[in-house]
Amino acid sequence: MIKFFKYNWQVRDEWFSWCNQLSTDDLLKDRVGGVGSILYTLFHIIDVEYSWIRAIEGKDDVVVQFNDYNTLEKIKSLSNTFCSDIVKFMQTNSDESNDNLVSIPWDEDNYTKGEILNHIITHEIHHVGQLSVWARELELSSVSANFIGRDLKSI
Amino acid sequence: MIKFFKYNWQVRDEWFSWCNQLSTDDLLKDRVGGVGSILYTLFHIIDVEYSWIRAIEGKDDVVVQFNDYNTLEKIKSLSNTFCSDIVKFMQTNSDESNDNLVSIPWDEDNYTKGEILNHIITHEIHHVGQLSVWARELELSSVSANFIGRDLKSI
Repeated sequence: MIKFFKYNWQVRDEWFSWCNQLSTDDLLKDRVGGVGSILYTLFHIIDVEYSWIRAIEGKDDVVVQFNDYNTLEKIKSLSNTFCSDIVKFMQTNSDESNDNLVSIPWDEDNYTKGEILNHIITHEIHHVGQLSVWARELELSSVSANFIGRDLKSI
Repeated sequence: MIKFFKYNWQVRDEWFSWCNQLSTDDLLKDRVGGVGSILYTLFHIIDVEYSWIRAIEGKDDVVVQFNDYNTLEKIKSLSNTFCSDIVKFMQTNSDESNDNLVSIPWDEDNYTKGEILNHIITHEIHHVGQLSVWARELELSSVSANFIGRDLKSI
């Protein structure tokens, strides 16, 4: 499970680097499909991941507004801050507790911890697939999505 | 790990149903990003998954040509056939052997079994993210990508 998080974070960082070649207008331009712009997609991935992890931990949701993080630098910084916190969670997380039910502040239903972790993983990969189409529509190469042959950095 | 396969196969079947509303021209139209058309994307996901599973099993690759499977019905049938075979693999697969090195007929590098399984999983989710953008470009709702709240069917 941790390997999927490492993969997602590494691919995310590569998309941050990829974004450097775009103008602010292109980063913020509303696009068809997904949740909107390239920058908002990255913000959304980070926000959703952290909210679910906080829910697993039984902590209050940290509500962040895109208007406060609408530049590439601010979003990278937000990602780094949230990831540092999630790493601490990962270091104490045990797969054995994956069947534990978690109550969610913003949802009436309960979900298991394992289900939530899987949701976080698939959520990011799905949205990154959308980024890859928008990249090609901008006539730019996309970041590789390969898991295989990827040297996963320790976190 | 098996849950991700169940998730992918369930989402894939929902995309097959979604495809019923499209004309053959729309299914086969070459699109920007990804590997081409909607139908070729689904074919590619199925082909890649099966090739890697066969490699893990130490079996010869089964080469399939899109020209032989270029209708929705043929691709659904191919998916069902390959999935039946993969289910048998899953039933005997042990996570304990995930560090085993696998040699690949079409690649000089060796990869671990775990790395290959993770690659198959992320590969499908990534391409499905691309389908979701094309769906919206066709002004159609996309299939849900949610892992959470999804009742995973037994396989």
